Amino acid sequence: MTTVSKLTESRGAWMMLGEPGLTARIAGAGFDWILLDQQHGAIGPDRLVGLARAHDHGACELAVRVPSADPAAIGRALDVGASIVVVPLVQTADEARAIVAAANYPPVGGRSWGPLTPLWGAPTPDAASAKPRLWPMIETRTALDQLDEILAVEGLDAVFIGPYDLSLALGMTLAELLADDRGPLATIVAACRKAGVACGAFAGSPANAKRLAKFGFGHLAVTTDLGIIDAGTAFVLPGWGAPRTLY
Amino acid sequence: MTTVSKLTESRGAWMMLGEPGLTARIAGAGFDWILLDQQHGAIGPDRLVGLARAHDHGACELAVRVPSADPAAIGRALDVGASIVVVPLVQTADEARAIVAAANYPPVGGRSWGPLTPLWGAPTPDAASAKPRLWPMIETRTALDQLDEILAVEGLDAVFIGPYDLSLALGMTLAELLADDRGPLATIVAACRKAGVACGAFAGSPANAKRLAKFGFGHLAVTTDLGIIDAGTAFVLPGWGAPRTLY
Amino acid sequence: MTTVSKLTESRGAWMMLGEPGLTARIAGAGFDWILLDQQHGAIGPDRLVGLARAHDHGACELAVRVPSADPAAIGRALDVGASIVVVPLVQTADEARAIVAAANYPPVGGRSWGPLTPLWGAPTPDAASAKPRLWPMIETRTALDQLDEILAVEGLDAVFIGPYDLSLALGMTLAELLADDRGPLATIVAACRKAGVACGAFAGSPANAKRLAKFGFGHLAVTTDLGIIDAGTAFVLPGWGAPRTLY
Amino acid sequence: MTTVSKLTESRGAWMMLGEPGLTARIAGAGFDWILLDQQHGAIGPDRLVGLARAHDHGACELAVRVPSADPAAIGRALDVGASIVVVPLVQTADEARAIVAAANYPPVGGRSWGPLTPLWGAPTPDAASAKPRLWPMIETRTALDQLDEILAVEGLDAVFIGPYDLSLALGMTLAELLADDRGPLATIVAACRKAGVACGAFAGSPANAKRLAKFGFGHLAVTTDLGIIDAGTAFVLPGWGAPRTLY
Amino acid sequence: MTTVSKLTESRGAWMMLGEPGLTARIAGAGFDWILLDQQHGAIGPDRLVGLARAHDHGACELAVRVPSADPAAIGRALDVGASIVVVPLVQTADEARAIVAAANYPPVGGRSWGPLTPLWGAPTPDAASAKPRLWPMIETRTALDQLDEILAVEGLDAVFIGPYDLSLALGMTLAELLADDRGPLATIVAACRKAGVACGAFAGSPANAKRLAKFGFGHLAVTTDLGIIDAGTAFVLPGWGAPRTLY
Amino acid sequence: MTTVSKLTESRGAWMMLGEPGLTARIAGAGFDWILLDQQHGAIGPDRLVGLARAHDHGACELAVRVPSADPAAIGRALDVGASIVVVPLVQTADEARAIVAAANYPPVGGRSWGPLTPLWGAPTPDAASAKPRLWPMIETRTALDQLDEILAVEGLDAVFIGPYDLSLALGMTLAELLADDRGPLATIVAACRKAGVACGAFAGSPANAKRLAKFGFGHLAVTTDLGIIDAGTAFVLPGWGAPRTLY
Ligand SMILES: [Mg+2]
Ligand SMILES: [Mg+2]
Ligand SMILES: [Mg+2]
Ligand SMILES: [Mg+2]
Ligand SMILES: [Mg+2]
Ligand SMILES: [Mg+2]
Repeated sequence: MTTVSKLTESRGAWMMLGEPGLTARIAGAGFDWILLDQQHGAIGPDRLVGLARAHDHGACELAVRVPSADPAAIGRALDVGASIVVVPLVQTADEARAIVAAANYPPVGGRSWGPLTPLWGAPTPDAASAKPRLWPMIETRTALDQLDEILAVEGLDAVFIGPYDLSLALGMTLAELLADDRGPLATIVAACRKAGVACGAFAGSPANAKRLAKFGFGHLAVTTDLGIIDAGTAFVLPGWGAPRTLY
Repeated sequence: MTTVSKLTESRGAWMMLGEPGLTARIAGAGFDWILLDQQHGAIGPDRLVGLARAHDHGACELAVRVPSADPAAIGRALDVGASIVVVPLVQTADEARAIVAAANYPPVGGRSWGPLTPLWGAPTPDAASAKPRLWPMIETRTALDQLDEILAVEGLDAVFIGPYDLSLALGMTLAELLADDRGPLATIVAACRKAGVACGAFAGSPANAKRLAKFGFGHLAVTTDLGIIDAGTAFVLPGWGAPRTLY
Repeated sequence: MTTVSKLTESRGAWMMLGEPGLTARIAGAGFDWILLDQQHGAIGPDRLVGLARAHDHGACELAVRVPSADPAAIGRALDVGASIVVVPLVQTADEARAIVAAANYPPVGGRSWGPLTPLWGAPTPDAASAKPRLWPMIETRTALDQLDEILAVEGLDAVFIGPYDLSLALGMTLAELLADDRGPLATIVAACRKAGVACGAFAGSPANAKRLAKFGFGHLAVTTDLGIIDAGTAFVLPGWGAPRTLY
Repeated sequence: MTTVSKLTESRGAWMMLGEPGLTARIAGAGFDWILLDQQHGAIGPDRLVGLARAHDHGACELAVRVPSADPAAIGRALDVGASIVVVPLVQTADEARAIVAAANYPPVGGRSWGPLTPLWGAPTPDAASAKPRLWPMIETRTALDQLDEILAVEGLDAVFIGPYDLSLALGMTLAELLADDRGPLATIVAACRKAGVACGAFAGSPANAKRLAKFGFGHLAVTTDLGIIDAGTAFVLPGWGAPRTLY
Repeated sequence: MTTVSKLTESRGAWMMLGEPGLTARIAGAGFDWILLDQQHGAIGPDRLVGLARAHDHGACELAVRVPSADPAAIGRALDVGASIVVVPLVQTADEARAIVAAANYPPVGGRSWGPLTPLWGAPTPDAASAKPRLWPMIETRTALDQLDEILAVEGLDAVFIGPYDLSLALGMTLAELLADDRGPLATIVAACRKAGVACGAFAGSPANAKRLAKFGFGHLAVTTDLGIIDAGTAFVLPGWGAPRTLY
Repeated sequence: MTTVSKLTESRGAWMMLGEPGLTARIAGAGFDWILLDQQHGAIGPDRLVGLARAHDHGACELAVRVPSADPAAIGRALDVGASIVVVPLVQTADEARAIVAAANYPPVGGRSWGPLTPLWGAPTPDAASAKPRLWPMIETRTALDQLDEILAVEGLDAVFIGPYDLSLALGMTLAELLADDRGPLATIVAACRKAGVACGAFAGSPANAKRLAKFGFGHLAVTTDLGIIDAGTAFVLPGWGAPRTLY
């Protein structure tokens, strides 16, 4: 398993269906990371283990979006082998600090020892060298207001934007949010640069990813497993007739 | 999928075994709703997805009882397609308000966008028109004391009584609770009528359901999946000998 | 586990959905046997093991309908603990003899030793006392023609009629077959009585079962798991309105 | 569910991973049929049922490749709702006739009644109107020698070529077989046209499919689920760098 | 199912793989209890039910380590039949009291009624006689500091030490912690004796268990399912060559 | 994955429970091969795929016992990655030749191309270099009579004895068979040596394995997954009291 080559730029794929063969195939396709979505994907605690096991053949990093900032969920994501943990709906610096505490062993935090990866033959990790990348999600009005304080929290690798929730929170459409060159997205990127913290976002499609990259977002979820299936069928089918529009 | 025809009266079936074929068959039998019980049924977050998918052919509403008032659990129940969320052990108006916040998108609440129903081909729902019915359970002494305050919370569709827990909480047997014409159940119904909020209860059997209906409870869980199996075998077996007593 | 009390008369339930909780509940309901249908139910070799394990708490005999007369399938049905094996589409005495050979250890037949029941803590059965009941199905025109020869085969416990397939084979409707007092069903029962072999049939509903019992069929599949669910919901639902017609 | 619009031309996708969400998504993508591969895919009798159920939302026909010409396997494929059955390694007209007998109800054949589709709420099919499309595979030297006799068998919808096995059988590479304009593939197409029987082939990629279409093969498996995933990731990834070569 | 014969001494096995056949076999092997680990084992809420069901044939007590002190998780562990609940990372007397409240029905606590064991045919337990053994884990520096207050909480059966986490918390290696005759482990045992509360610990191997027993720990997790597999293969393999070192 | 180091001698473990974590752990323990038992273990065609995938991390060869000599089952065992196929109840040289034909690609046999191992990321095998080891089982009276003819069949790697079935077939107890120094087992070994074909046997315990090794059997199934669990618990438990007798 490689690590993300550049600290501030990567391309990932977002797993919602949670099927092991599909996940394993995508894990080997060339993305920097795949993410298992426990918040809005069909992946509960039991499937999480099987999918992490399926990833084991992959050549990319494993990320998990936990359903909430619950420390037990963060610990489990790390125990199954995630090197990146995405935490939804983080609103304050205190919440961000609690995430750092949940994800790190003492003395930094209070994470409990017990890796699951040896269950499927992977080597036992080393507590001392565990360096989880934590990506709290900025997707509410409160979080926008508290952004500088959140960015100042020690132990975060990046902040990660959820454009769907952010647009809902701001009373805008997603299209308006993405189109607004001097709006919230530009503000977030500027704040991150100033704080020296990387930033990323869920794109969900190459088109959105390109737009978000222009804003300066470095870590991008460029597609989902559903998007990959749709792109694959669209690629294969038009050979027999009129091309279908994709994205 | 139809919606509950009358706002204050419905008949539902309670799924505890959590098996998809059984659930799908009951979903099409004529109940107003089926409920997937995550608190005291064999249904964790992973099975929830498969059961919601199995319900998809049903002609009734989908309800979920979440294991607790955890906002992530409430969000997931809605994401898999529930139109009714039953929340156990609600004790105060503050807790009730937190449930309303968890179940509604901004600006009403803080629910996060991400429906799972499109994963199995159902149409993507519309955030603007999402109107979750929330049924907090009244089943503790504290909740009885706070009932008027709870009923005054904006955004609840009904309160739902758990007679088993309520009788335990009040130091009564279930039979005593059901027999007491001027006791807690009558008080609850009166308070609901005064507040203009619908009320329901878990019955578990047609006999209990009839008794609860007499009190004035409108939304009733008249049976469980186990009860349906037992009723079905009792119906089929006596044809060959002495009838068995049922309920 | 009890054994069928009377050699020639019993009431069973037919499992098509193949879900373990549903199956276990029905297994304890008072039938003489439940049958796991591998021919026309959702039960392949992998689910068969889990369902046999689920039955283990039941108070009735376990029957399996194998998908075909394949000796490996017959052996597996017995290995998971079936005491009754129903074999579809048997047409000749030679086929019947092959079934007897497949189901019995040497020197009677060629069954291979290897019970699976100890895998889930049940006691290891005893090869010497194994006495599988074999119920070949009579459901084709050829089988009707060869009935006397089939009935003369040593080692059969009963013949079992498939009225659906038999009516298709004879170019009749099911209703016609069941209504014909002097037709094929009467002929079969008479032949069985003459040969001193028990006979049974798939009914699928109490009404059909009563009709088949009148012909003299002793072992009857009076319902299916689907039928039990439908009967159970029909019993529970009419309490709230007009009764539904069942069967 | 639509039926294949033109009798002799269609585009299908071949499922090897056998995962329900992936399969359901592909089933709705615009292919004429998807095939569940029980011979060389990860799909045994138990998974077959769940995948057929997952397909139920699809807008295409369901095909199954059975593991062998075993009548029980052919019956099960039809019982779960397949309208097309692909049978591997058919070598003689007698074998082809046995397939026709296995797939049709009396009086044409000996198929046994018992559809599984009602288990998941689909309407019960009608025995009289069942018209299974049977596609025996021609992929051995013997089958080539017997092709005219096989094509003369009543009740076949098409013959289907397995170029991988055929090239192995003929001692050629796949590339040689596909490149040979006057070789076995041309001979097969000519024989089919003369006999008035449709012909198809497994392509596995659009490139191979175009080549096979030039020969005159009408029913083509243009891709697999693995191929769709690979095409999808290849489409999504190059937006960020150099395009990857696909197929 | 027997209960632990002596209040303060028992030998248990720790399940991390969470496979039902393996678990059932170990449950019958002679341990006083087996534990299902939801914190650092591959056992989420959905698998928990199946494993509790698999244990049902066992001749030992069922213990569950919940992922956190979440009352819903504690309730579920008890609902599936655990008589012992191990709660990780308990730090204060208030937290310990909350656990007692979560695990007991009114009037002692606020546990909600709804046993799952009847789902698989086990008798319905009796609310009045429910006496859950609660084993909060002492494995942080704060917990050490608060130990006397925690031990004074009414309703605990024992405290249970996690030597891995405790050594991390104290900045020691596990070996140092186990070797220190007058260190934290001795202090804990002394405090427990003074308070009249039993104490236990996770050992993970017979060697560690012997060491911990010398300190005076009574309830010991002497091995894991992985450890049992490794011991079993080590026992079997050396018969054919040089013995392997174990533990 | 290593290959069996010496052609005629190896030690294997026999999987009956068919659970992936258990199987994967045993696969890495030091046996020369593990076998997945489809005849008398809880492993049907669907579980076979998952277990072969779980083995993928193992450091030993994969063997499969197919349920019967059905060519489709033999092909599937090889497709999922088995290098050894054990076939039960082989009785004649013709049957042995049919197995060789089923297991080899043209021109030697008629095996169909379609490996499943690439589904989980393993490299695609090469048809030309496929060299399946075939171990037909000798366990009937007929097979004993035909042993020389069977041993003369080209393409067998070894014959494999089933002592349980063989003793049943010969009307002896297993103990008598194993004790008889000049009986059937000695005869078989002598015939194999004369024919230059390796021989093996199912032992099931180290004690039986030592006895069989004395006869000269080289490939030995020294234990089962159940036996490993029992040995592991027996090793761990006596440390706390009197040792238990094992085997
Ligand atoms: Mg979001
Ligand atoms: Mg309650
Ligand atoms: Mg039939
Ligand atoms: Mg082929
Ligand atoms: Mg710990
Ligand atoms: Mg044998």
